[in-house]
Amino acid sequence: MTPPASDGPRPAGDRLGEFDRIDRFFRPLAAGNPASLGLTDDAALLALAPDRELVVTTDALVEGVHFLPGDPPADVAVKALGVNVSDLAAMAADPLGYTLALAMPRGCDDAWLEAFAGGLAEAQRLFAIALLGGDSVATPGPLVISVTAMGTVPKGRALRRGTARAGDAVFVTGTFGDAALGLLVLQGRLDPGPAAAAELADRYRRPRPRLAAVPLLRAVASAGLDVSDGLVADLGHLCAASGLAAEIAMERVPLSAAARAAVGLRPDLRTLPLVGGDDYEIVFTADAAREGEIAALARDAGVDVTRIGGMVEAGSAAGVRVLDPSGAPVPLAGRGWVHFQDG
Amino acid sequence: MTPPASDGPRPAGDRLGEFDRIDRFFRPLAAGNPASLGLTDDAALLALAPDRELVVTTDALVEGVHFLPGDPPADVAVKALGVNVSDLAAMAADPLGYTLALAMPRGCDDAWLEAFAGGLAEAQRLFAIALLGGDSVATPGPLVISVTAMGTVPKGRALRRGTARAGDAVFVTGTFGDAALGLLVLQGRLDPGPAAAAELADRYRRPRPRLAAVPLLRAVASAGLDVSDGLVADLGHLCAASGLAAEIAMERVPLSAAARAAVGLRPDLRTLPLVGGDDYEIVFTADAAREGEIAALARDAGVDVTRIGGMVEAGSAAGVRVLDPSGAPVPLAGRGWVHFQDG
Repeated sequence: MTPPASDGPRPAGDRLGEFDRIDRFFRPLAAGNPASLGLTDDAALLALAPDRELVVTTDALVEGVHFLPGDPPADVAVKALGVNVSDLAAMAADPLGYTLALAMPRGCDDAWLEAFAGGLAEAQRLFAIALLGGDSVATPGPLVISVTAMGTVPKGRALRRGTARAGDAVFVTGTFGDAALGLLVLQGRLDPGPAAAAELADRYRRPRPRLAAVPLLRAVASAGLDVSDGLVADLGHLCAASGLAAEIAMERVPLSAAARAAVGLRPDLRTLPLVGGDDYEIVFTADAAREGEIAALARDAGVDVTRIGGMVEAGSAAGVRVLDPSGAPVPLAGRGWVHFQDG
Repeated sequence: MTPPASDGPRPAGDRLGEFDRIDRFFRPLAAGNPASLGLTDDAALLALAPDRELVVTTDALVEGVHFLPGDPPADVAVKALGVNVSDLAAMAADPLGYTLALAMPRGCDDAWLEAFAGGLAEAQRLFAIALLGGDSVATPGPLVISVTAMGTVPKGRALRRGTARAGDAVFVTGTFGDAALGLLVLQGRLDPGPAAAAELADRYRRPRPRLAAVPLLRAVASAGLDVSDGLVADLGHLCAASGLAAEIAMERVPLSAAARAAVGLRPDLRTLPLVGGDDYEIVFTADAAREGEIAALARDAGVDVTRIGGMVEAGSAAGVRVLDPSGAPVPLAGRGWVHFQDG
């Protein structure tokens, strides 16, 4: 890779090399998206249906911070796109397109780029989204991948955080803790056996945005967001925005079989599913009386949905209270980490 | 700055620090933009007028590559936003909003962030745009700033590259070479005297997107783009997309007084205005018969517009021919540098 730089004219050979790379790796990713204009113009050009609003989110990933230097490039691509598409799902939006800004160190050669683009192609199919445009620049530092994802939602139907009501039940999709446990596996700090290890590591590396839950969210949710910073931290954001508190039952927080096995081996990790990040599940609130309807919609969508607690008046103690089966509060250490627009 | 990282839970103190920073530095930048939802949700939410299309562009800047490590943070902010808004202007779009992904090294402390946010605030006023959302992450490497800018254009009126016609005249806004000469000044490789030096360096550090030319472009231009990679390189992109060639007269390419002085001192730099990047002027094509109308529109808009040549059939030699006053071709070295969607 001889990426572009703006510190002076470049010989024609380098420039052609870069154009070749665009043709080879990126133009195919934009082929299914007429709005990309084939990556030939200064910008992409999109029309929006008149009954729709646009949802826009940005998340950046840094090598050594958000993914591990040895991670397969295809997994990195799936993660970069997945964490952004998860924000679209959390707003109950349908994916529309994304832009990509890549700051690439010299080590990102054509073989790396081919594998990365292959991962993007796979993620595009999984997430029903295609490339709109982007920028690729040289960096002397680690790889930085910035994605801006766009989606659309029927007017007035975007799912927000500040609209939960006291008395609503709290629901979650999927399972919690797998990604945080997977990171421990990849760091050599947890050994739950090969099958569970592979499953947990995959969950860390390859987020699965819950797009399948979008129709359900539009139908029943009063508020919601995706869980990137940890269940307690993100539900805490919903509480703060809604001016309410939440009570959740620790034993109701759903764990995968692999996570149950890992926590069985290592009881010191039993609260990690509550505070570990990168789950990319959705936590949402809804009228408790609609639990049956929600179960039916979840079955239709092929998404596991679990009721884990309820929203209450904030009173003196706002935020999230996690209760054990005896009704006693579960003490928690750190509560996740943040982005400046929580994504 | 203790930026977020996704490698495990963080103590509450760090998190609050990050929230404080969002409140202090970024929320004010989004205050004028209801679509940002106050940076409280997973994503921004925009409505679009029914007669408009959305224009989306992404450009990333890397410290030490696109700006100099010692550059004032406010200038870096103006440049990061300016290069993106220039792409909106080049598509004849009105700015709507932008997202920001910051990968920040430890050296970016609160003082740096305050100055950077001040530069963004200034740029927002200059470019009539406001923050929609973003992400701020830690990096062990150099500062990387990725901006995705959005604008709108009346349906069907976006200015493209591939729509020039043989016989059209070629026009440019403003002057050329200032930024490339300014970079030489900042690198200590050119000394045109203090006043010219300051003017050229400012031009390198603070792009001035030609938003004022947008009404003129919508009224008369047949094709166009902004000049980030150098006049000959970017006009070459227009030629390639339109299947035509261009002939431009070297002596007609407008230079500022500072650039004229610099080139007078250093005749070896006489072709730099043709190939140097970062000018962020607009080169466009239009019916030659409309030159008078264009001059009047340019006067009304307060933008200098100069006719520098014309579009011709490609014949055997496609691309851009630069002719000297005797009609002989001017030999050019390097021809700029590229992004993967030329921004």
